[in-house]
Amino acid sequence: MPLRLAVPKEIFPGERRVALDPSIAQRFSNMGVEVLVEKGAGEGAHFIDATYADNARLVDDAKTLYAEADVVFKVQPPTLEELDLMREGSVLVGFLKPHLHSDMVQKLCDKKITSFAMELVPRISRAQSMDALSSQASIAGYKVALMAAELASFFFPMLTTAAGTIRPAKVVVVGAGVAGLQAIATCKRLGAQVEAYDIRAAAKEQVESLGARLIDTGVSAEGVGGYARELTAEEKQTQAKVLAKHVAAASAVITTASLPGREAPKIITKDMVEAMKPGAVIVDLAAETGGNCEVTRPGETYEYENVTIHGPVNIPSLIPIHATEMYAKNLYNFLSPMIKEGQLQLDWEDEVIKESVLTCDGEIKHEPTGRRLRGAS
Amino acid sequence: MPLRLAVPKEIFPGERRVALDPSIAQRFSNMGVEVLVEKGAGEGAHFIDATYADNARLVDDAKTLYAEADVVFKVQPPTLEELDLMREGSVLVGFLKPHLHSDMVQKLCDKKITSFAMELVPRISRAQSMDALSSQASIAGYKVALMAAELASFFFPMLTTAAGTIRPAKVVVVGAGVAGLQAIATCKRLGAQVEAYDIRAAAKEQVESLGARLIDTGVSAEGVGGYARELTAEEKQTQAKVLAKHVAAASAVITTASLPGREAPKIITKDMVEAMKPGAVIVDLAAETGGNCEVTRPGETYEYENVTIHGPVNIPSLIPIHATEMYAKNLYNFLSPMIKEGQLQLDWEDEVIKESVLTCDGEIKHEPTGRRLRGAS
Repeated sequence: MPLRLAVPKEIFPGERRVALDPSIAQRFSNMGVEVLVEKGAGEGAHFIDATYADNARLVDDAKTLYAEADVVFKVQPPTLEELDLMREGSVLVGFLKPHLHSDMVQKLCDKKITSFAMELVPRISRAQSMDALSSQASIAGYKVALMAAELASFFFPMLTTAAGTIRPAKVVVVGAGVAGLQAIATCKRLGAQVEAYDIRAAAKEQVESLGARLIDTGVSAEGVGGYARELTAEEKQTQAKVLAKHVAAASAVITTASLPGREAPKIITKDMVEAMKPGAVIVDLAAETGGNCEVTRPGETYEYENVTIHGPVNIPSLIPIHATEMYAKNLYNFLSPMIKEGQLQLDWEDEVIKESVLTCDGEIKHEPTGRRLRGAS
Repeated sequence: MPLRLAVPKEIFPGERRVALDPSIAQRFSNMGVEVLVEKGAGEGAHFIDATYADNARLVDDAKTLYAEADVVFKVQPPTLEELDLMREGSVLVGFLKPHLHSDMVQKLCDKKITSFAMELVPRISRAQSMDALSSQASIAGYKVALMAAELASFFFPMLTTAAGTIRPAKVVVVGAGVAGLQAIATCKRLGAQVEAYDIRAAAKEQVESLGARLIDTGVSAEGVGGYARELTAEEKQTQAKVLAKHVAAASAVITTASLPGREAPKIITKDMVEAMKPGAVIVDLAAETGGNCEVTRPGETYEYENVTIHGPVNIPSLIPIHATEMYAKNLYNFLSPMIKEGQLQLDWEDEVIKESVLTCDGEIKHEPTGRRLRGAS
């Protein structure tokens, strides 16, 4: 019997992505895998059922789908109710956020489900094409730049008219990881003048390659192995002081700093917001993990002292077509090497498999402290 | 006594612009004009009262303000109640939309108000710096491009990642006037592949200078004096057929076609929308005058057969800081040449003054049929 790969409709509120698009369904089908898709699963991402029909069997409801599944692809971590429907000993692949869901982890063990967390895929070059955190962070970075431009009461680009010239907007992007770099690139595309803030001096070259400038705080946090070292209180103060000056001069601030599996660092203080120009905008990509700005309210947009504060959550889901296509490709690149002659064959010596497994045979393979979990940007 | 220039708070629902920003207030003040600003007038555009205080007298309420005014600057046409507050024989400058407000025109006559409609400013090179229709259309064109990108379920730019490449979005911009060209430029900035549709063959060069392509329908509507001639029914059909093919292939369509003082032409038919890809987006800049798309609902965003239809109204007001700055500059460039030694001196031989006056001495100087009124794009 061929391997059965099942893709349910996501039930997390507001989630518009799905773990498989029709073109990846076709690729799996060509490998001899039987693909099962719950009816309506692709709707939120505008992939209507008919587009799957040639390469997948459409299943009426989640219960039937899970009951037949050897492997389940998900976007959001499964709820306990979803896990109830899964077969003992089956395989689950998706974002699992184990540090937030200890009861889910327990149940994965109880049901002897082999679960792979996309957050755990190692950052080695062979696994880049499976790096779902990065692909979704790219999308989020692009989107937050658009949000800043959309919320702005001002132009981003320079505009020259018969009545005079509008100067380009000044934008500060905090955090120059995958999402931050994409935000910088998008703001530059829109013609803004962009400054970036990152405590890793290594970010300088990448920031400059996009035509932006790295804010020089005079403090380097370069530590061992490319990770940032802990700064002294005095160094932190120096940094904050320099940043505050640039934030006060900016029309828009986009924050993208996150810490692996932990609450987002508070970088933009209330005082900094209060010193901003009337009509300025802050978009906080880290809102979901508490926000980089002290006054961010996750999921809300509001005016704080004449500054618009936007705290979007689940941002990749807002560009569902491409977020789905990229995520599905990541999952394909992850799972397909494990399929030999239509059957799943897990090679536990393989670094990618070994590192990304969360539970197997009733055991937790990674502590759900999130220490090794990478952040979203 | 110096000339008194008064700027009320706009009362039109949703209007965030104001007819004067603090820097133009200073310029008038430097000319010896006494500037009066209603308290809170600049709030919607983030110009707080304090920023006017050095160059203007802040007035508590509209009644007091109008009672003292020699000249009133407005953004939206005055309501009858506002006109009640105006002094007989005073001067009014603003967008007046006379073809929509015959009762306002009548009252302007009754009160012997000298009114200038910014829509009537002639398109001669000397008056370019006063061209408020163009300055606001520029802003609207930029904004509709951002709206299309924001509403899209897909990326505008090409994105190359380890898991593959996302191709740039195809965008069709209908109408290559001031707003259309700005929309094209903004979509190009965002990395989209842009095609433009315009019945004037003269648009070709401008469209191409922005890196976009003019859709060739094989029909030229070039008429006398640069205006479009009326097409035959057969020619119209040919055009629509070619356009339909490009619309069906597009991910986003932005429409910006308007007719001077008339209802917007219906260019995107229901059939064309139905042939679009699931997840496609239409942003209709002409929604306020009925829309270029048959299924546009002015002021609404909704899904029509898996296509998102966005019908924004009063678009410049959504970028209130720069829309205000540009509009105020236009008004300054219009009025300041008429001020000699702190007093208003109207030279009725001046082409700009002669053409843009709507009412004077109790008479309508232009028929409110709107025939000569230019459209918003």
